[in-house]
Amino acid sequence: MTRQGLLIVISGPSGAGKGTVCRALLEKCPELVLSVSKTTRQPRAGEEDGVNYFFVSREDFEDSIANGDFLEYAYVYGQYYGTPRSTVENLLNDGRDVILEIDTQGAMKVMEAFSAGIFIFLMPPSGEELRSRIINRGTESEESLNRRLSAAANEVSLAPKYDYIVVNDRVESARDKIAAIIQAEKLQVSRNSDLIEAIAEEVKS
Amino acid sequence: MTRQGLLIVISGPSGAGKGTVCRALLEKCPELVLSVSKTTRQPRAGEEDGVNYFFVSREDFEDSIANGDFLEYAYVYGQYYGTPRSTVENLLNDGRDVILEIDTQGAMKVMEAFSAGIFIFLMPPSGEELRSRIINRGTESEESLNRRLSAAANEVSLAPKYDYIVVNDRVESARDKIAAIIQAEKLQVSRNSDLIEAIAEEVKS
Repeated sequence: MTRQGLLIVISGPSGAGKGTVCRALLEKCPELVLSVSKTTRQPRAGEEDGVNYFFVSREDFEDSIANGDFLEYAYVYGQYYGTPRSTVENLLNDGRDVILEIDTQGAMKVMEAFSAGIFIFLMPPSGEELRSRIINRGTESEESLNRRLSAAANEVSLAPKYDYIVVNDRVESARDKIAAIIQAEKLQVSRNSDLIEAIAEEVKS
Repeated sequence: MTRQGLLIVISGPSGAGKGTVCRALLEKCPELVLSVSKTTRQPRAGEEDGVNYFFVSREDFEDSIANGDFLEYAYVYGQYYGTPRSTVENLLNDGRDVILEIDTQGAMKVMEAFSAGIFIFLMPPSGEELRSRIINRGTESEESLNRRLSAAANEVSLAPKYDYIVVNDRVESARDKIAAIIQAEKLQVSRNSDLIEAIAEEVKS
């Protein structure tokens, strides 16, 4: 029997550095699969369709919603973002460990749908650092920037709902901590009952 | 406020390689402290008082029992083994992470006394390997050997009571898995509420 894969949700406030840490993690652990989300927003400079997101039309997205084809979706800053349900479920059933990099709104929905998921809150090293990262991103209008700052404060207040907190002070350090979490989760007794039974049988015989 | 240390219990059947793995772990992570047990058994070749065990008389040990001075103790193969309670508690209060290397009987008692402990079951790679390790230890009488083999089978059946299972196929691999478990446990949300509150305050202000 193939062991079910782990769903690892990496989330946190805008400006916490989710994208950078996830890229570093996937480079270090090439056996992990990143779930690619669908979105209706325009690609930013350097973003590729099918790699960063599947960039789809609003009509396409709303059809998928109607068909129940999202594990979670959210409407943020006037755009849709969503995780295709069937893609993730197929990967998990094949024993692949899947990384979901999503905002906190999405993570809250995945907590309801997949309580067996591993929920990691990526935290900026300080509130001040979070502010300057959001400001320095520089791709936002002033209105959008203020909305993001206020949203970030609300998002940090969701951290206690997660399983783990990883402070993103250095990318390599945050990456290694997430890798340790994944390794430790795989060693949990509840995920190894087949192994225990097999060895218990061998000792008896 | 000093953060409370973690109590990490490394346990498993006789012959699982607890001693070797713990030594490797302490070498890799010198910030960990090994709790030294008291015992009434005779030192084996190469064992040092105060390093491997505190070797004490039966009278001394029974006095300590009477004074409630053991976190756990057990009477195994005609000898006492016990973990001095105050030593461990002082270390944890100082924020030190303490490793307890104990047999499964002791671990069951620590589970009752310290439910916040992290219980790791060190498993030999196979039942056959476990048998040959016990036989090859060669420090036992035949009667003692048979008792150990039968006890090992019972001990493996206790594995589901632990938090984590680490298969000791290679010492370095088992050591690194335990290090990952310790790191992951420290990242658990429940152990970081002070940090979350501090950052939430900073973002708001």
